[in-house]
Amino acid sequence: MREVSVSEVWKRKYPEPVVLVTSVDEKGKPNIIALGWSMPTSFEPPMLAISVGKTRYSHKLISEGKEFVLAFPQEGMKDEVLYCGTHSGRKVDKFKETGLTAQPAKEVRPPLMEECLVNMECKVVGELDTGDHTIFAGRIVRASVSEEEGQRLYSLGGERLGGVRESG
Amino acid sequence: MREVSVSEVWKRKYPEPVVLVTSVDEKGKPNIIALGWSMPTSFEPPMLAISVGKTRYSHKLISEGKEFVLAFPQEGMKDEVLYCGTHSGRKVDKFKETGLTAQPAKEVRPPLMEECLVNMECKVVGELDTGDHTIFAGRIVRASVSEEEGQRLYSLGGERLGGVRESG
Repeated sequence: MREVSVSEVWKRKYPEPVVLVTSVDEKGKPNIIALGWSMPTSFEPPMLAISVGKTRYSHKLISEGKEFVLAFPQEGMKDEVLYCGTHSGRKVDKFKETGLTAQPAKEVRPPLMEECLVNMECKVVGELDTGDHTIFAGRIVRASVSEEEGQRLYSLGGERLGGVRESG
Repeated sequence: MREVSVSEVWKRKYPEPVVLVTSVDEKGKPNIIALGWSMPTSFEPPMLAISVGKTRYSHKLISEGKEFVLAFPQEGMKDEVLYCGTHSGRKVDKFKETGLTAQPAKEVRPPLMEECLVNMECKVVGELDTGDHTIFAGRIVRASVSEEEGQRLYSLGGERLGGVRESG
């Protein structure tokens, strides 16, 4: 074992599942953020957690609105995910720019994305300050899946994205 | 989109990176847990978060000891990871039963595991109650990597474990 910086360790964490998260401003206008840092966090009640950078526009929207939708993008969505991960909703309309299709959620104000494999409607029930991020813990109040069986998208390091398969 | 139960959605989350986490009891005796639910949560200071079920022995050890080591197992460690994920440290000595090699950490009491690709020594700086789990947020105080370039191990659903490769 050789001591290294944490950034050196993070280089070995790929492939890492990537997710898209929608939230809305006080007028209901939706935004999308791409996140590498998320995890399930309870079976009963069903919950998941996301880490959102404090400077990100979605941090403000989720802090204020207390709701989000977490979705699994599929392999064919590399360009859209990369766009959402490298542009700010303060400046652009990401639904318009990516062409992703917003679909009304049933239990929360942020929309689902029709092209994603799964969408989970979440209400924020806990927050934890963690350095330069906040963990938002969301109770999953409704879940839906696409009819197609697609392959999940993963971050492969840096801005590289792709699918993964079990290896021999 | 078709509404489904959350357990139905979780079936579509694989492959999911799996990690091993060590902790110690008040006498310094170490235990190992296998977790599917972890994520980085801050660049500066470097932090990560884990979700640990409240009934697990490691939940007690980490709640009391406030320290853990998070490690990335490699592909060849399927049997050891499955053993750690399906037995309780209340009843067995997992280091003895798996043959994994404990190596003293420098900054915390729980040990590193020599066979793992990376080991991160963490001090608990925040906790969040989330349903049937607790999120422990740990500041990474020291990180080390193995000299070999191995492939990370992933959970492939149920008790199946394996490596993954980028697909086409």
